[in-house]
Amino acid sequence: MMWWEDFEVGAASEIGKHTFSAEEIVAFGRQFDPQPYHADPAAAKGSPFGGLIASGWHVCAAGMRMLTEQILGRTHALGSPGVENVRWLKPVRAGDTLAYRVIVAEARPSASKPGVGLVKHRWEARNQQGELALTLEGWILVRRKS
Amino acid sequence: MMWWEDFEVGAASEIGKHTFSAEEIVAFGRQFDPQPYHADPAAAKGSPFGGLIASGWHVCAAGMRMLTEQILGRTHALGSPGVENVRWLKPVRAGDTLAYRVIVAEARPSASKPGVGLVKHRWEARNQQGELALTLEGWILVRRKS
Repeated sequence: MMWWEDFEVGAASEIGKHTFSAEEIVAFGRQFDPQPYHADPAAAKGSPFGGLIASGWHVCAAGMRMLTEQILGRTHALGSPGVENVRWLKPVRAGDTLAYRVIVAEARPSASKPGVGLVKHRWEARNQQGELALTLEGWILVRRKS
Repeated sequence: MMWWEDFEVGAASEIGKHTFSAEEIVAFGRQFDPQPYHADPAAAKGSPFGGLIASGWHVCAAGMRMLTEQILGRTHALGSPGVENVRWLKPVRAGDTLAYRVIVAEARPSASKPGVGLVKHRWEARNQQGELALTLEGWILVRRKS
């Protein structure tokens, strides 16, 4: 299990790849973001995107799953105060595969909570053409060893 | 259907309320954010939160649904370039009801895309005690009438 002290600024981790199927895009879209280009394959064809694209929130949530499995699941994590600068840079179409990478961008002790530190990860997700599709900066709270 | 010109800075809309059931918190957690306090009711009791709390991404996605139903569904919307300053200010526990409100914080023509404007909404979600649980600023692209 990792403590706050174990996060080294600059360390990068490939946390995994995810392929967005049409079925999964539509399921997320119908539940959470029912715009035609996320939730309705026929209407998506006539939309400005010319076909289905994943909700931006879905693209984030798929990365969160991998961050949890690869890193947070073995960290003394205490939740997150928030995320910053979420950028949906390219549409994610049915069949696209994104490779997610996180880099430790910043680490500092909490000013208000003794025994707790903050870690900022920069997320980068690239599609199969190598294009950046998503970037964001997410904070996590982590217990300090000392 | 609304155009970019129809968004007036300062206009506020109550877009709806959502109650987070334990079942729904666990379903989202298992799929996208399998930390013990989101995905496992028994382990959540022994966690720093003392019980289940909704994934922050779930709290955003529930608001996105209402924004779509109330506003984007009747807007010439062209997707979103991103969101900023997402703040998860209070844990959202099983049974909590959040009331979501959006305020038009900024509106400007796109510098790069003719015929398109940008609208920034500030989201505020309060729990049944009136406490702010979520704030964020989200951009949407909207067709211009002119």
